[in-house]
Amino acid sequence: MTGEPLEQLATELANGWQVIDGHHLEKEYTFKNFAEALAFTNQVGTLAEEIFHHPDIFLAWGKVKITIWTHKIDGLNEADFIFAAKADALLGTS
Amino acid sequence: MTGEPLEQLATELANGWQVIDGHHLEKEYTFKNFAEALAFTNQVGTLAEEIFHHPDIFLAWGKVKITIWTHKIDGLNEADFIFAAKADALLGTS
Repeated sequence: MTGEPLEQLATELANGWQVIDGHHLEKEYTFKNFAEALAFTNQVGTLAEEIFHHPDIFLAWGKVKITIWTHKIDGLNEADFIFAAKADALLGTS
Repeated sequence: MTGEPLEQLATELANGWQVIDGHHLEKEYTFKNFAEALAFTNQVGTLAEEIFHHPDIFLAWGKVKITIWTHKIDGLNEADFIFAAKADALLGTS
């Protein structure tokens, strides 16, 4: 990974995303309660359908953890960085 | 665990729930696509708020895994069996 993708990855990492298992991008968001976490899950789910890129979403009381990768290549590409940025933007954190 | 709770547990196990980590109840539901899994996540989330008993929910493409336990006792009690039955009922599978 070089050039623009690497810059995009650096941006996501600065926004709290982590690379796990070598090729997945993951971020845990915290909320005041279950209802707010559920609402964010919905926003992320709607985003996933809109751009047809589907993350794994773990929802617990006050917490949402999102894991994204591109299944076809079992790695990260443009679509994942776009998704990460758009997920952050839902909360106004990017 | 004896008597009625044990009978309730037996019922949930017959409905596809599993005991994991010794004291959590877990079930994986499968769906045709992401949208249906998201819709079920919402139904389960709404149920959680209604009866104020909150599971962990893992949502992925075509899949929802629900894990429930009573945090206060770090184990299973009446509320968990009720939740399991109501979650199944949302899909008409119990």
